Amino acid sequence: MAVQTLSDTALRAAARQQAVDLFEQARRLGADGVGISRESYGASESACLELLADWARARGLRVEQDEFANLLFSLPGAPAAAPVVCGSHVDSVPQGGNFDGLAGVVAGLLCLQRQHEEGAAPPHPLVVLAMRGEESAWFGKAYMGSSAILGRLSADDLALRNLRSGRTLKEAMAAAGADVARIEAGHRAAWVDGVRAYLELHIEQGPLMVARKWPTAVVSGIRGNLRHNVVRCIGEPGHSGAVPRWLRKDAVLAAADLLMRLDEHWRVLLERGNDLVVTAGVIGTDPAEHAVSRIPGRVDFSFEVRSESTETLEGFYRIFQMECEAVARQRGVRFEFDRRIESAPATMDPALVGTLLDTAGRIGLPVEKIASGAGHDAALFANAGIASAMIFVRNEHGSHNPREAMDIDDFMDGVELLYQALGRIA
Amino acid sequence: MAVQTLSDTALRAAARQQAVDLFEQARRLGADGVGISRESYGASESACLELLADWARARGLRVEQDEFANLLFSLPGAPAAAPVVCGSHVDSVPQGGNFDGLAGVVAGLLCLQRQHEEGAAPPHPLVVLAMRGEESAWFGKAYMGSSAILGRLSADDLALRNLRSGRTLKEAMAAAGADVARIEAGHRAAWVDGVRAYLELHIEQGPLMVARKWPTAVVSGIRGNLRHNVVRCIGEPGHSGAVPRWLRKDAVLAAADLLMRLDEHWRVLLERGNDLVVTAGVIGTDPAEHAVSRIPGRVDFSFEVRSESTETLEGFYRIFQMECEAVARQRGVRFEFDRRIESAPATMDPALVGTLLDTAGRIGLPVEKIASGAGHDAALFANAGIASAMIFVRNEHGSHNPREAMDIDDFMDGVELLYQALGRIA
Repeated sequence: MAVQTLSDTALRAAARQQAVDLFEQARRLGADGVGISRESYGASESACLELLADWARARGLRVEQDEFANLLFSLPGAPAAAPVVCGSHVDSVPQGGNFDGLAGVVAGLLCLQRQHEEGAAPPHPLVVLAMRGEESAWFGKAYMGSSAILGRLSADDLALRNLRSGRTLKEAMAAAGADVARIEAGHRAAWVDGVRAYLELHIEQGPLMVARKWPTAVVSGIRGNLRHNVVRCIGEPGHSGAVPRWLRKDAVLAAADLLMRLDEHWRVLLERGNDLVVTAGVIGTDPAEHAVSRIPGRVDFSFEVRSESTETLEGFYRIFQMECEAVARQRGVRFEFDRRIESAPATMDPALVGTLLDTAGRIGLPVEKIASGAGHDAALFANAGIASAMIFVRNEHGSHNPREAMDIDDFMDGVELLYQALGRIA
Repeated sequence: MAVQTLSDTALRAAARQQAVDLFEQARRLGADGVGISRESYGASESACLELLADWARARGLRVEQDEFANLLFSLPGAPAAAPVVCGSHVDSVPQGGNFDGLAGVVAGLLCLQRQHEEGAAPPHPLVVLAMRGEESAWFGKAYMGSSAILGRLSADDLALRNLRSGRTLKEAMAAAGADVARIEAGHRAAWVDGVRAYLELHIEQGPLMVARKWPTAVVSGIRGNLRHNVVRCIGEPGHSGAVPRWLRKDAVLAAADLLMRLDEHWRVLLERGNDLVVTAGVIGTDPAEHAVSRIPGRVDFSFEVRSESTETLEGFYRIFQMECEAVARQRGVRFEFDRRIESAPATMDPALVGTLLDTAGRIGLPVEKIASGAGHDAALFANAGIASAMIFVRNEHGSHNPREAMDIDDFMDGVELLYQALGRIA
């Protein structure tokens, strides 16, 4: 059987232009002067969802908001049973890029519109899901939207504060229209039960696909992570000129010492074949008290470790704790930790992965299987027992920065793969 | 000859109470909720000067403001020729203590008042100097007041910005009443020519006098320093989960690496007998772009090194530059530096030091000679060719923090030493 693909037709050019226009409108809405800022459960995120809803309604698609303020798009009159959900998130990090998250929602919408235009009857009805609150940059926790959907957002999570505005996640979710009482009670979204599969297209956030010249890839698994948003190193302030080295308890040097120890452990663990990345993305002395001529008595920094292996994560966390103790002992400081936040690694569904790889072969798309270094909502769906899979699209300069650059033709290849696979999920 | 000292009389108790009251009033004026904030050329500094002026006028002392907005106190009708200037600064670091600077001015005022009450005729008329702008915490440069007095505040200095408000030093000085045109033209204060000597009483800012149980000490010399207020390490931002270690250009790890290298050089140089302290009092990623899940593409930090030896300062500065280059090469980052700011080390006048030590012996005060780790305005007067000396008063918990604690009886011992020495400077 020859597969009918958009690459044969003028429809592909039309769909391509629609994608270009939609991305451009979202970019203008989210521009912050440097990059794109779409705040989790904030006004800029709502504005982007409104754009997508208007786009879909104008094309005769059905738009609904679920009880946790996410948007669901479907064909008018489609059956509700055993849908394949195809989604991603619309929020971004501050001064981030336009495609991280949004590309997956736009890809789903293009597939839904094409089903609508072609009068397609796939084995499972397609529901496109535009989620809120995936990025940890705002509240210090990732996957808030999918956690709520799956009934796994705790009271502790809801008490987290926006790192800039100080508003709690609970306040922000309520303001965005989410039923926070249901979230607190641990209820899953009503639409989740009976979902056949979860599919997510996403840009690659690392340099691998560019280096290896793969326009699309199929994800085999997703790294989990362990985090502290704030580790506080407390020493003793003093006049920078008047305290000799042996009497100092310099918090900045202690933190630097700790980070160099972790960097060295990381290097050794990689050499032993472990999958691991370690990041302290945030560091700072307190502007209310720091000074060039003052021995820093305190510094705060973030700690994050990611791996495909829970064992590696926990092992590195023990190393981290031991080195904190050692530095504390040697430099006369102490370390304080906020709540430990974790996301479990996830394996993608082998049958779905097989379908995607096979589909790519049928439509003549070069494709490879790779692990995802970044976390994704798909990991939560997978770990909740829903068969899940992901398509990666090549993207330059990584993500979480304004230089993120996805070629729109690569994106259309990914959309084609997604569309064709949707027709083949039994 | 038996020396008449206040320790014999009820006058000491009265003077002690005046000091307690004056410090308490200044503390209330400068309280910021955590410690004391008296901003260089800011309203809180002006308020303190106004308090001192009111106190002096109420006691019949003459109060004048010089052309650079510092206050001069003298006896009414005293001759103007060859005065001994006894002064210090009234500003503090943010959230600092009450005595760093202010103690020296209050000490001078107590001496002036006692001369007034006793009708004393010392060999040289006493002028008490209350300076502004000594602390580098506000504009990133220290000794602004004494630099202006000595005609050494450059246009570059005047262009420095308040690290919090962004206001330039020139604007702040003009607002405080300083003649900035004269400063820019490099004019010295009119009263400086012909000054016989500069004396400054100051709390010790290190832990040495407490450890060794010395209530007062005489300073032999003052450490100089080299500084960059902002060293910027620039790497490459990226998604924390998606970029492998070998492709990262992590600015925070690079800065930590640099600081650990400097810490090790410092340790070795101390073992070789050099006088040296090294401090990075300020560090921070940019809150507008940093995130727990983002490889930090940039971090700013301060660099300061102090030593009694210009050779050690310059030697360590070369090491600093070399290590920046090495880290840049190895970690794929680059370093940018703001203006290099320097304060030269200074030697105190041996004859004045001798007079102070001898006077202490005569009044039965245990006293030792020590070097000052912190910088002081006295260093600028000394390096401008004016015979200078300093008295240190014991102080617990260092300075530049709210826990700074001077025993008022130690202070009165220092005042007594100062008063008696003033009568013996030929």
